Amino acid sequence: MFETFAAIDGFAARAPAFDEAAAAAARTRQNSLTKPPGSLGRLEEIAVFMAGWRATARPRVARAQALVFAGNHGVCVHGVSPYPSAVTAQMVANFRSGGAAINQLCRAAHADLSVIALDLDQPTGDFITGPAMSEAETLDAIAQGAAAVDTQADILVLGEMGIGNSTIAAALACALFGGEPADWVGPGTGADAAGMARKARVIAQGLERHGEARGMALMSALGGREQAAICGAVLAARAARIPVVLDGFICTAAAAVLHGVAPGLLDHALVGHASAEPGHRRLLAALGKQPVLAFDMRLGEGSGAALALGIVRAALECHNGMATFGEAGVSEA
Amino acid sequence: MFETFAAIDGFAARAPAFDEAAAAAARTRQNSLTKPPGSLGRLEEIAVFMAGWRATARPRVARAQALVFAGNHGVCVHGVSPYPSAVTAQMVANFRSGGAAINQLCRAAHADLSVIALDLDQPTGDFITGPAMSEAETLDAIAQGAAAVDTQADILVLGEMGIGNSTIAAALACALFGGEPADWVGPGTGADAAGMARKARVIAQGLERHGEARGMALMSALGGREQAAICGAVLAARAARIPVVLDGFICTAAAAVLHGVAPGLLDHALVGHASAEPGHRRLLAALGKQPVLAFDMRLGEGSGAALALGIVRAALECHNGMATFGEAGVSEA
Repeated sequence: MFETFAAIDGFAARAPAFDEAAAAAARTRQNSLTKPPGSLGRLEEIAVFMAGWRATARPRVARAQALVFAGNHGVCVHGVSPYPSAVTAQMVANFRSGGAAINQLCRAAHADLSVIALDLDQPTGDFITGPAMSEAETLDAIAQGAAAVDTQADILVLGEMGIGNSTIAAALACALFGGEPADWVGPGTGADAAGMARKARVIAQGLERHGEARGMALMSALGGREQAAICGAVLAARAARIPVVLDGFICTAAAAVLHGVAPGLLDHALVGHASAEPGHRRLLAALGKQPVLAFDMRLGEGSGAALALGIVRAALECHNGMATFGEAGVSEA
Repeated sequence: MFETFAAIDGFAARAPAFDEAAAAAARTRQNSLTKPPGSLGRLEEIAVFMAGWRATARPRVARAQALVFAGNHGVCVHGVSPYPSAVTAQMVANFRSGGAAINQLCRAAHADLSVIALDLDQPTGDFITGPAMSEAETLDAIAQGAAAVDTQADILVLGEMGIGNSTIAAALACALFGGEPADWVGPGTGADAAGMARKARVIAQGLERHGEARGMALMSALGGREQAAICGAVLAARAARIPVVLDGFICTAAAAVLHGVAPGLLDHALVGHASAEPGHRRLLAALGKQPVLAFDMRLGEGSGAALALGIVRAALECHNGMATFGEAGVSEA
């Protein structure tokens, strides 16, 4: 379905749309429930969002999927992370044995977690000296992301792991939305001021080489396998009318490449939280997205998205479980 | 235990304190878990908060209680709410039959909900013409609130229902923290501009009569039964080292009367969310409390507090369930 970059461009024009009739019916239901209209605030908006994308006035989350994609990055040779690339595989092992934050948060939110490690022993190319990936490598990662989506799920939580990938995210965001590399660079997993300056210099060199790249070609030039897989999963979810919950800076920057293809491709995406990574708020503003939560988290792995899933579930519990004024015999104003 | 106002004043001096050793042990554990230190942001703070109040490095929420107190208010004769006072009892019936938002949110957060209706057929006095309650009535409501607390619970979610009680909350907040009545008045369940002006005038008259009242006597003068019961529950929870989660403007304003007795009496209280009711953010600033969530909710019933309970649970799942760097064999920076 997404076997060429041109096929992805073509999908943008025929992607399933928000179902306005289902959303209107959900809004009508919200206004009949035993509460002052609008008094559940963002929870009402989330219920209507889910209704429109699931194309039903009474959306439910019977099945929630979480996907965490992992990759390694050639730019790590420039010392952009205080952690060695080997930590990516160590953390994948930790995900698989249940010891990471995302495991606990998926259990708490009743999401089925799958972890997909993408050629960890073959880091992408150093984007200073060439493209990060060939077109074929990019399409392969997109296909793996798309294939991982459970089309029977009602919602999809997305996350990532990859030492060095806050540099990838800042490079993509800077290429997409402009500004200086330093505007998009932050500490990531814990870079100090010298480390952040190093990240900004690496990005400036990457942009000098690849700054003209647009659409999915930008992913090949500056991205990574887990970023491409996130795009594949976002696209496959859209095809199945499954809303997605993006995580923090790195996950959002990966998906933002699709915004570069066509802004509407992210209309079915919530952003789970505003990360403490400073570039994230700038990126959210550029995308016009309001995050669900803001807890100063900066872990990745899908942690903020999984936490937000609990909020989506609560919103739908209210939407489906509350009595109407008529049912409860409560007087209206 | 809280049979006189003087006993409550006395409790402030000997109330259980935050256990710094348990909190330090929890912080040490957080720094050993497989994530960059601090990267779970507010979730880490919440875990440490729970550790200090539960006096254990590994706090758990095996048992969560939610209490919603309901009362009626004499000031309703002045048209401060667009809803009739009869709606208080109607909503209590809705809580009892499971049809309200709080029922769905407590189910989602696995909290045991009890609803305590306080003499709904006897509204408090009109505070323009006299005190809202006698000292005996106030102490009775405090006792009912304290008696409702399950001392085996690990956390207590608090909420309220009472037509007219956003006027009570604004009056208490204005008496405690100054400013003009209009600074504290908002639409509540849906007052228009004329309704809000009416609320401000009613409060100005109440303050003219009772503005000198301090400590628990302020509750008698301007408060209500559900407000007094909330104070009783907050006190009983403190005595049992049970952290509490306050809800929005009305619940927080009720508890703020204890802050007037002694600021430390609210140290074991989180505020679940920042309400859309405009006085709430002002009140949070005065109390030095940072809300957990901010979803533009303005329903009351404990809805924002119950939603925040899910976040507390997630924080403790991470705290207790994650592997340490050593356990997982993950390299540190």
